[in-house]
Parts: sequence; structure tokens; C-alpha cells
Amino acid sequence: MEHDILNENISETSLYHILSEVTIQNKGNSMEYIEKSMERDSMLIQAIKTGNKELLNTAKNYVASEITHPYYYANPIIHEDILRTRKNGMIIRNTLCRIGAALGGVPAINLHLISEKYALQIEQAPTPEYLEYVVSPKMFDEFCDLVENFSTIHYSNLVKEVVNYIGNHISEEVTVTILSETFHVNDSHLARKFKKETNYTISEYVNQQKIEAAKLLLQGKEMSVGEVSERLGYNSSSYFSKVFKKLTGEAPANYANLKMQI
Amino acid sequence: MEHDILNENISETSLYHILSEVTIQNKGNSMEYIEKSMERDSMLIQAIKTGNKELLNTAKNYVASEITHPYYYANPIIHEDILRTRKNGMIIRNTLCRIGAALGGVPAINLHLISEKYALQIEQAPTPEYLEYVVSPKMFDEFCDLVENFSTIHYSNLVKEVVNYIGNHISEEVTVTILSETFHVNDSHLARKFKKETNYTISEYVNQQKIEAAKLLLQGKEMSVGEVSERLGYNSSSYFSKVFKKLTGEAPANYANLKMQI
Repeated sequence: MEHDILNENISETSLYHILSEVTIQNKGNSMEYIEKSMERDSMLIQAIKTGNKELLNTAKNYVASEITHPYYYANPIIHEDILRTRKNGMIIRNTLCRIGAALGGVPAINLHLISEKYALQIEQAPTPEYLEYVVSPKMFDEFCDLVENFSTIHYSNLVKEVVNYIGNHISEEVTVTILSETFHVNDSHLARKFKKETNYTISEYVNQQKIEAAKLLLQGKEMSVGEVSERLGYNSSSYFSKVFKKLTGEAPANYANLKMQI
Repeated sequence: MEHDILNENISETSLYHILSEVTIQNKGNSMEYIEKSMERDSMLIQAIKTGNKELLNTAKNYVASEITHPYYYANPIIHEDILRTRKNGMIIRNTLCRIGAALGGVPAINLHLISEKYALQIEQAPTPEYLEYVVSPKMFDEFCDLVENFSTIHYSNLVKEVVNYIGNHISEEVTVTILSETFHVNDSHLARKFKKETNYTISEYVNQQKIEAAKLLLQGKEMSVGEVSERLGYNSSSYFSKVFKKLTGEAPANYANLKMQI
């Protein structure tokens, strides 16, 4: 629905033609930008909201084709500082992605983790090319995956409640038995229903959420692997490390360092 | 509807409690930020989308109360550079406002003019205080007014078509007579209907749109007042100046200079 509303009122008007003949701040014309900006924004939001990789690829090509245009995301070139201009454009993209994923039903904590991660990467980027060809596509993909993997929008009320419970008890051990007792349902019924709706077993889902939290805690560099493991309710640090490596491909001790190198 | 979706999934979870005990990048805790960020974003978007000044005031207070928090708009403090951090936060606010106004049915050209104006003001701001107490409230108000004044969402199809026609013929003289002939309707019927739906007479509306375009052209500093007047289809430069002064409070010649001083 947002798609349609955002697409309204886009037409080739004479005002655009006037503007196209005028260079503003000597930086080029705005005709093309204005015409396409709402279409591009709505396409990006829509792709991420629905976790639609195909539409996302179209949106990515759209976005990529416009970076040579001075009116980069309603963001005129600043003091000839192209890196700052692109960083600002990326902050806007990060915001659009965050809104898309929020509309797609991604829990606040997951949104926050990714949004902040990219806020830092954007600010630390050394070149415009790095932003455009490394950070930007990764950011789009990651927000899109977030909706595919964590959106609660199509879950039944029971599964939504279970998902919230898992988030609320991330520092404790959570099992099918505990959940079925808490929600007064048969445990095999719950397990089947959860797997059917989320495509994860309850144990996979619990671990995935714990590992997302672990990533943030490890990046903070204030806690050891053992402390993180304990804080997230794992009985053994080696089991935590095994799960972490299975889900991220990295040992927890390496994680923060690797992230900083990127 | 976006309001509800954005508000979903906000709850006080144990993960927030964990995060609240951990300082990330030595900059403070994120618990409060994460809990409130989606609520704040959705309130701001909703206020602007509906042109609701009362809700906007609530959102403004909300936003103002959080600037001391390090997790300013998913935007951690950068290299201890508080001005840059606040500028980045304002870029995010500008984006949220733009999306709210787009959802509220504001035509692309009006969105673009305001969004770009503030992109420049944000980048040129000398202090965090100037951003927070001068630029930010003005920006919120102006986007909100945009929806109140230019949203086409509740117009009938006829009035929407007339509004589009006016945008498409901004460089020509547009009168009730021309419009009623173009759309094959009785001219007094059209005049009444337009005034009833938009609260402007057709002539007021045409002038308002022309003056919005004039502001952009004048800020470009590439065209004289006479050239701008001619480009926008005014027969006389002095009549154009009179209309401009009536709507903006300033003579066109002063406009660009004044804008630069702010």
C-alpha cells in the first residue's frame, strides 16, 4: 500500500523541465532525480518490507545507476566532499531499510543491531567506492534477510507470543517443555506449529536469537566469551562456542576482531 | 496502519536488560534507546503523514528528550564528534519526515524542495545547539505544513487532475477558464469544488505552486528576478514580485540572500 502512495504524483511536469534547465549550486539538474526519487524509495522500502530479493535486486540496480547524479538521495554534493556526500546518502539508505524492515514486522532489537552496525561502518568507510560496492549491497541484503528470517507478521498469535517470550528470556534456558507448560499447549503440537510457521525448530530459533545478542555483546569487547556464554544462559562455554561457530562461521573469540577489520 | 506495525514488538525484554548492563563502545547503554526508537519513529511519521500538529508536538518533545542519549537515532557517537553525530541524526530525521509527507500524499516536487533545503542547512549548521533548537523544529513544522497544505490524498479525482495539470503547466498562465475548458466542466462548479476541497481558490493555488518553484530558482542564483518571473508565466515582473512578497513576506531579490544568512 505504501508502494502505491509513494508512487503517486510522479509525472513528467513542466516544473521538472524548468528545473532541468537550471543548474542549482552549479551542480547539475534535478529533473531526473526528482522524478525517480519517490519511485526508488518506495521500491526499496517495499522490497525490504516483503523480504523480496528479486525486487531488491531491481531496487539495487536502480540505486546504483543514480550515484553519479548530484542529487544523491535528496542530498546535494557538499563542499565538493564526495565521501561525506556518499556517507550522508548511505545514512538515508540505512533509514529507508530500517523503516522497510520495521513495516515488515522485524522486532526492534534486530532492527537496532543491524542499523547501528551499519551506522558505524558507514562513518568509518575510507572511500566512496567502498561504501557503494561493499557496504551498500551488504546492508540491503542483510535488512532483506532480516525480514525473511525474523518477521513475525504472518505468525499465529501463539507463535508470536512464543517469539516474544524467547526475546524476553534470552538470558535463560528456553526449551519446548518450558514453553508448552507456560502456554498450556501440547509440546509436540507446539513444536510442529512453530516449525511450520517459522521454518525453525524452537531450539534453532532460541540459539539464533541468542547468537544475535552474543554478536553485540562480543563487539562491545567488554565481556569475555565465557561471560557472554553465561549471560545468555548457556551451561557450557564450549557448547556456546560450537553453536556460535555453526551459525556465524567464526569462533566467538575471533568475531569482534574480524568485524573490525572489514 | 504503519503506526501499529511500527509499534509492534516493543516490549521490555531481558535482552534489553542484558544490553543495559553492558557499555558498547564505552558510550553508554542502549536499553532505553531500543525500547523507544520504533515508537518515536512511528509517532513522527504518523504526525507528519496526517499533518497532525498536536501529535507532532508530542513527537517533538519525545525527540527532544532523547538527544542526550548516546544512541541518537541508531547513530552512535562518532569519534567524539558531537556535531557530526547530530548532523547524522538530523539526516535521519529529514528522511523520516520525507517518508511521512510522501505517505501523506505530498507531490514529489514539494517533498524534494524541502528535503534538499534542510539537507543543506543541516550540513552547514555551526553547532549542535543550532541544529537541535533552530533547524530541527522548523523542519518538523515545515513538513507537517506541507501535508496540511499540499496533500492530494483526500481530493476528488477531478481536483487531483487539476492539481497535476497545474504542476504540469507551471510555466504557463493557468486560469479557471482554461481549466474548465480542458476538463469539460462548468467553470463556477470547478471553482467551488476546488475551493471546497483544497481551501484555496484556483488562482491562490497556482500562485502558491509558482512561488514554491520561484524560491528554488532564486536560490540557484543563476537567474534574475525578471527571468524567474518570465519562466513561471507571469506577464509582469512587478506583479510576480507582489505575489512573491505576499506569500513569503520577502521581496524576491532579497530571498536568496536571506536564506543564506540563516
